Amino acid sequence: MMDKFKEITTKREEIYNGKIIQVVVDDVTLPNGQTSKRELVFHQGAVGILAVTPEDKIVLVKQYRKAIERAILEIPAGKIEADEPNPFVTAMRELEEETGYQCESMNRMTKFVTSPGFSNEWMYLYEAKGLYKVDNPLPQDEDEFLEISEVTLDEAKGLIEIGDICDAKTIYAILYWKMQRNQ
Amino acid sequence: MMDKFKEITTKREEIYNGKIIQVVVDDVTLPNGQTSKRELVFHQGAVGILAVTPEDKIVLVKQYRKAIERAILEIPAGKIEADEPNPFVTAMRELEEETGYQCESMNRMTKFVTSPGFSNEWMYLYEAKGLYKVDNPLPQDEDEFLEISEVTLDEAKGLIEIGDICDAKTIYAILYWKMQRNQ
Repeated sequence: MMDKFKEITTKREEIYNGKIIQVVVDDVTLPNGQTSKRELVFHQGAVGILAVTPEDKIVLVKQYRKAIERAILEIPAGKIEADEPNPFVTAMRELEEETGYQCESMNRMTKFVTSPGFSNEWMYLYEAKGLYKVDNPLPQDEDEFLEISEVTLDEAKGLIEIGDICDAKTIYAILYWKMQRNQ
Repeated sequence: MMDKFKEITTKREEIYNGKIIQVVVDDVTLPNGQTSKRELVFHQGAVGILAVTPEDKIVLVKQYRKAIERAILEIPAGKIEADEPNPFVTAMRELEEETGYQCESMNRMTKFVTSPGFSNEWMYLYEAKGLYKVDNPLPQDEDEFLEISEVTLDEAKGLIEIGDICDAKTIYAILYWKMQRNQ
């Protein structure tokens, strides 16, 4: 659909190819024949997990985020690895690695592109229920320093208010959780 | 707060400085004394507007997004320009430029970082009410090809289902709109 909007690539320059992102600049021909440039960031995609405990709390992960130079609280999340066949597998792994929990159900609640103006990163959001602790969970990543907490819906709302929760996937997940409870 | 999580920058290499994004790689010292690298994308921030018409529809903008190589439907949105003192000003401008509407109220519904794992982009979401068409609206950007439509909540839900709506700000805005109407 929608082909009259298409931008044709006439040249692609690779600027950077890192562990997390690849950056390119495309020369494009616009629908009116004019030309422009598009600065693009490619990313493998990621998952986030709304993990609801038997006490009806959600699990949050505190982590320093260099891009914004501060620690924030997020739902458990992580990048899809090259050897993972689908984001469900990533979600199961990240939940265990980051929180030490496994779960009895893991269902997709939504997926979205985080910032389509420059990035192709897809975020797959899951809801995990029936959480239980495992004895020897998968280890955390070597360069990640995480602190886990569990909060009620009211506490989560308060954390959004004061800005300690401030990222798209976590705010979306909490709004979704709130709506399910009609509160 | 949370200083024990801090990562100290020991070196910053600028990879790219474009019109939309700046890309850097930081060498960091982790809380345990080890070192790592952080690939970072800096962005001025952006706004999105849930614009509700007198007929209780929302305005959507169809636009080709090069990063994902397809046209999608989004709420009106745009980047904060360097000369704009705050995102409210950006929201008023973008609403008029992209849709030809002005409004009688424009209120912040939330703000979030779109992808804190690598980007510092903030998205400020507004709800515009009391929309009315203006005779000579601000012109659209030269390299943007937009098609405007207005849809009901049920139509918006259907567009999410089939994937024509698929970005974070738009999906969040529609969930918020749905919740307000308790549907």
